[in-house]
Formats: sequence, C-alpha cells, structure tokens
Amino acid sequence: MNICIIGLGLLGGSTALGLKAKSRRYRIIGVEVNREHAAHALSFGIVHKILPLEEGVKQADIVILATPVDVILTLLPQVLDAISKKTVVTDLGSTKELICQCIQHHPNRSRFVAGHPIAGTEHSGPQAAFAGLLPGKQMILCDKENSDLDALDMVENLFMRQLNMRISYMGAVEHDRHIAYVSHLSHISSFALSNTVLDKEKDERSIFEMAGSGFSSTVRLAKSSPDMWAPIFTQNTKNISQALEAYIRNLQQFKETLDAQDAHKSYQWMQKANDIRRILLGIEK
Amino acid sequence: MNICIIGLGLLGGSTALGLKAKSRRYRIIGVEVNREHAAHALSFGIVHKILPLEEGVKQADIVILATPVDVILTLLPQVLDAISKKTVVTDLGSTKELICQCIQHHPNRSRFVAGHPIAGTEHSGPQAAFAGLLPGKQMILCDKENSDLDALDMVENLFMRQLNMRISYMGAVEHDRHIAYVSHLSHISSFALSNTVLDKEKDERSIFEMAGSGFSSTVRLAKSSPDMWAPIFTQNTKNISQALEAYIRNLQQFKETLDAQDAHKSYQWMQKANDIRRILLGIEK
Repeated sequence: MNICIIGLGLLGGSTALGLKAKSRRYRIIGVEVNREHAAHALSFGIVHKILPLEEGVKQADIVILATPVDVILTLLPQVLDAISKKTVVTDLGSTKELICQCIQHHPNRSRFVAGHPIAGTEHSGPQAAFAGLLPGKQMILCDKENSDLDALDMVENLFMRQLNMRISYMGAVEHDRHIAYVSHLSHISSFALSNTVLDKEKDERSIFEMAGSGFSSTVRLAKSSPDMWAPIFTQNTKNISQALEAYIRNLQQFKETLDAQDAHKSYQWMQKANDIRRILLGIEK
Repeated sequence: MNICIIGLGLLGGSTALGLKAKSRRYRIIGVEVNREHAAHALSFGIVHKILPLEEGVKQADIVILATPVDVILTLLPQVLDAISKKTVVTDLGSTKELICQCIQHHPNRSRFVAGHPIAGTEHSGPQAAFAGLLPGKQMILCDKENSDLDALDMVENLFMRQLNMRISYMGAVEHDRHIAYVSHLSHISSFALSNTVLDKEKDERSIFEMAGSGFSSTVRLAKSSPDMWAPIFTQNTKNISQALEAYIRNLQQFKETLDAQDAHKSYQWMQKANDIRRILLGIEK
C-alpha cells in the first residue's frame, strides 16, 4: 500500500516511522519542499522516496497532509483535484473548521476524512520525529458524515489498528471551540510566560539561576514552532480570543485577590484549580 | 549528629530521607502537628522519632524549618529563643524577605541561615517525599553576612556535601523579586489555566478528551498545595503583583495581535519566546 505523506516534520515524520515500524507492506512516499528536511527524511529512512506533489499523490492509496494548517488550506483542494476515485485523503491539522469549509463543495469532498491527532512535542522537523509519538494517543475525526464509508474505514484502520490510536468523533466547529481551551490556550500561556520572564531578564541577569523543574514544565510549550502555530492562531482566532479573554479575566480576578491580601479567597481559588488532578489522571494514565 | 526537622511534608520529608540515605550518623528528629503525617513519617522510616517542638529543638545540632512560610514566621523566633549557643537553624521557605525581617533583631539571629532549595513537585505531604528530591538541585542561601561563619559552614556542608546540592548566594530582597518571576508566576499561570478550562468544562463536558501532554505539562503546577502557596502569595504580594501585571499585559498585547489577525507580529512574538530554549537547556541538563 502506498502512503503519500505531505510535510515531513514532527507529525508527518512520526506517522511514517510508526507505519514503517508496524509493517513492511507500506511504501512511504514523502512530499517535502524543504530540501534539508527531504534529505534528512531519506537518509534516516523515514520515507522510501521523495516525489513532487502531483506525482506522489498520483501513486498513493492514501494521502496524509501533515503541513502547517495554512498550507493544508492551499494544498487540500489541489490534492482532491488530482486523486483517483479510490484514493483517500486525510490531514493532521490542529484546526478543522476552515479546512473542512475550504473543500465543502469539492466534487471529491467525500474522499477526505478530517483528522487531528492529540500528540506532539515542543520540537519540530524530521529530526524530532519518532515511531512512538502516535501510538496510545487520541485521534479525533471530524464531520465523518461527509466522508465515504470506505474512506472512513481506511483512515480508522490506519490510525486505530496500525498506529494503535484511540479514535473519537466530533463536529469540526465543536472541535475548534474545545481545542482552543485545552491546546491553543496552553501554548499562549507558555509563550507569554516565556516572554514576560525573558523581558525581566534584560535587567536581572541572574534570574534563571533560580528556575527549577516547575518553571521548566510550565514554559515548555514556548519552544514550539512559530511556523506551525501562527497559522493555527489565524485560523481559530474567534475561539482562541474567547478562551484567552476568559484566561486574562481569571488572572485579573486573582490579581485583585492578591492585592487585597485576601488569603482565604486565594486559598479557595487554588483549591478549585486542584480539581485538575481528576482530569490529569485521565491524560497521564 | 541530631537534625530536627520541623514540618514533615514533601520538602522536610525528602530532606530527612536524603540525609538518612547518605549516612547513618544522622539522627532525624521530626516535629509535626499533623498526627497522620507524623504517624506516616515514623512508620515509613522518614524520621527516627517524633518529639514536641521544644524538646526536638533542645536535642538538635541543626534545626530545619520546613513548614509553610506563614508557620515559619511564627516558629522561627520561638526556635531561636529555645536554642543553645551552638545550635544552627535554617529554613526551606520559598520567600525570604519577611522571614529574615522577623528575626533581624533577635539576639540569636546569627545562628540562622536563610535557605531556599529550588526543588519540589506538585505533590505534598510525607507520602510524596523521596530521597532524590534535593540532590543535584540548587540551594539558595540569603543574607549570609548576617549568619555566623560556623553556622554557614554547617549548613553549606549539609546541603552541598551531604545532599549534593549546588549552593548560590543572594540578598533576601533580591531573592523574592526574582523568584516571583521564575516560580511564583508560573504557579499562578497554571492555577489560572486550570480554573479557566474547568469553568468551560461545566458547559462542554467532553472538553478534556482532547487534552494531551502539552496541556498536562502546562497545567501540572495547578495540583500544588494551597496550604503551601496561599502564605507565599501573602508574603511576596508586591513582587508577584508586579510580575503578574507584566504577564497580563503581555497576554493582552498578544490578544490585540490575535484579534487584528496580524500573523507576522504573532510569529515574531513566538519567535522571541522560543529563546527560552537557551534557558531550559541550563535547567534540564
């Protein structure tokens, strides 16, 4: 079976490695405009060959779009233009509403299955890819009623049986509203924490000698790639803006509590936040 | 040598276990008002015995205060009242200015060495204690010029040679200003992220199915103990308020960038934040 992966970064590369580790029957065709990334993917055996987009798509049984989400918006209609009637197309983008919208009237819409794996690290590029990234994680498939049954079957099989992911289903609009809170907002809170402390460091050079594992954990996502995240913020602006507003309001309320030295209220605020343990038990299991 | 540890939570318990793992010559005396914690500390061999405060202090060569910082403010003067001329007293509190102030005119001030280990987890209580928490970490000693040389020697020996920590020195006022940014602020950003998403969950029950390791890392500190943190926020209000203001301002500026759909500016903001890699390399090494 020929799998064409467009974009050989962390996610595309890890998908390729995961499939290659699972079975020899997959021929992985890579499409990658960054020459260095393409060369790395070839020499480290992430893909079997590199082809231009149109040629790769033509040879594929399944096409997986694994580029930043702005590039998905551009390439997805082109890919659907170029495929045969049997080819299945899926994507790994972190936003879903605009991606589903951009091809809603395409004659080959039903060959597309919109996907989002809840998996990643703060690193990027094919150098960061590893076979174990996807197995055990959640794969969200959106608007499945708009996909052909055989296309959905093929994508479910690929991610559930071959890559050992758990599948869940959701509307694209609902997906973007929720993911703004549990993924996009935590990236913003990290980027902002990083910038706030880096600004302070200009005057207080020794500040980072005092940083420990707690700081490191909270700020980890600030290492994430702007190439990936700038387009996500552009595509999910409305939902992220709402989540960010709620976050800022929460911080402002706590600042009032703090300035009023209201230790009791501050205690209750933290006690409420402790309830996140219940959630994290589920994620970290 | 008799070491009296007042407060057998995560830090006090881990100090006891670290010293016991290092050498049999330490007799660890625990002082703990929480009966359950005291019983746990005895039955799990964290301490050799439990004594009332005054008795424990009387028998000690070194007294280590490892309670929440509000309790340190109350107990430190009492401990200095009760010690012999040879006894050395230190603490593990996350704030230093008020703690140093509260005993600045005490006749035994010079027997006290103010300390803050940059170590911890989001868990608390003696159940969370482990011998490996302190080794390899940073120990900050403050206002050392106010301590007797032999007292400073003894504390440095304990943390550097026995517990394999790296020692650095700093003024108490400077300590509190810096730690507001690299520790206290990251706890607040996590508590607030937790509360923002938990509030949203009330209406959107399935939201946490979509949370992954990124969210988990950013929100980890929201599990921290309010008993420990409420007094820290009270004691370091001015510095934390300033750090929090800078953080909120940074988030508001990003929200304007986001709402204006200025992808270029958003890209630059993240690129600047990426510089945190330089710092984290140092912490995670």
